[in-house]
Amino acid sequence: MAKESKKLDDLFHDTLKDVYYAEQHILKALPKMAKATRSPELKAAFEKHHKETEGQVARLEKVFQLIHKPATAKKCEATVGLLKEGEEIMDEYKDSPALDAGLLAAAQAVEHYEISRYGTLKTWASELGLEQAVKLLDQTLTEEKNTDKALTELAEAVVNQEAQQAAE
Amino acid sequence: MAKESKKLDDLFHDTLKDVYYAEQHILKALPKMAKATRSPELKAAFEKHHKETEGQVARLEKVFQLIHKPATAKKCEATVGLLKEGEEIMDEYKDSPALDAGLLAAAQAVEHYEISRYGTLKTWASELGLEQAVKLLDQTLTEEKNTDKALTELAEAVVNQEAQQAAE
Repeated sequence: MAKESKKLDDLFHDTLKDVYYAEQHILKALPKMAKATRSPELKAAFEKHHKETEGQVARLEKVFQLIHKPATAKKCEATVGLLKEGEEIMDEYKDSPALDAGLLAAAQAVEHYEISRYGTLKTWASELGLEQAVKLLDQTLTEEKNTDKALTELAEAVVNQEAQQAAE
Repeated sequence: MAKESKKLDDLFHDTLKDVYYAEQHILKALPKMAKATRSPELKAAFEKHHKETEGQVARLEKVFQLIHKPATAKKCEATVGLLKEGEEIMDEYKDSPALDAGLLAAAQAVEHYEISRYGTLKTWASELGLEQAVKLLDQTLTEEKNTDKALTELAEAVVNQEAQQAAE
């Protein structure tokens, strides 16, 4: 396809493939993070978000259907980098009292990436007149924002807890 | 340093180095993005944020001073990935009416990463009793949130404008 002909619908499709890649890799990363954490609350949060992510993948597949394209993933460098940082935390802070604080921060960085992507996709879907896609993307956007909020609330509790353990 | 001894102050220091790397690379990317855009409003937004970023780098250097560490950067894989996505847009959508929409989306993904990082650093600084650092990090967090808000407002205007141009 010539560069000149790439328009907003192409950008929407490209970004959809990018987010599809992101969700599939987040789906693989979450059980590792749930296993790594020592906080039962954080483990529950990761498991809950894993279930949600399955639904988000299904929603993306519906959006692909709406634009009459097969659901395909395109390597998303940002997701690769974000998940790599989570792995570094699991490795470098494995036996540290700061492990959960680090895991939480890594998860929130991923959430924020997704919030930005779904916000963008929703704006473009609206401009392209894809009203059904707007609804689906908005459902996921709301879930991502709620997850981020829940992680923020957990963050202070976990950090406090771990700081106490470290001082003991 | 043995893994066992890594605590919240190490995590704070590691993440500070990561964000220092991020800001330095964002500082280099913004002029390229300002040059690439065809929207005067977006160009002005990128230039404004470039100036702000200089101040944010200086604030990070003050935080390093507060913890008695030299200001050093540590390669941040997430930033590498996020900026790579912006470069892909500049390349693939160079002559496309959707270029600015793509640039805006890439910039917002970077902003969201920063919002998440500064939020995390602020929480940890507070837990570590670094009150002066909390203030500095909060100033930057507010700036990043305002930038994201301004970009969101621009996004709809730019997308509408470009969709019209594409239809002409």
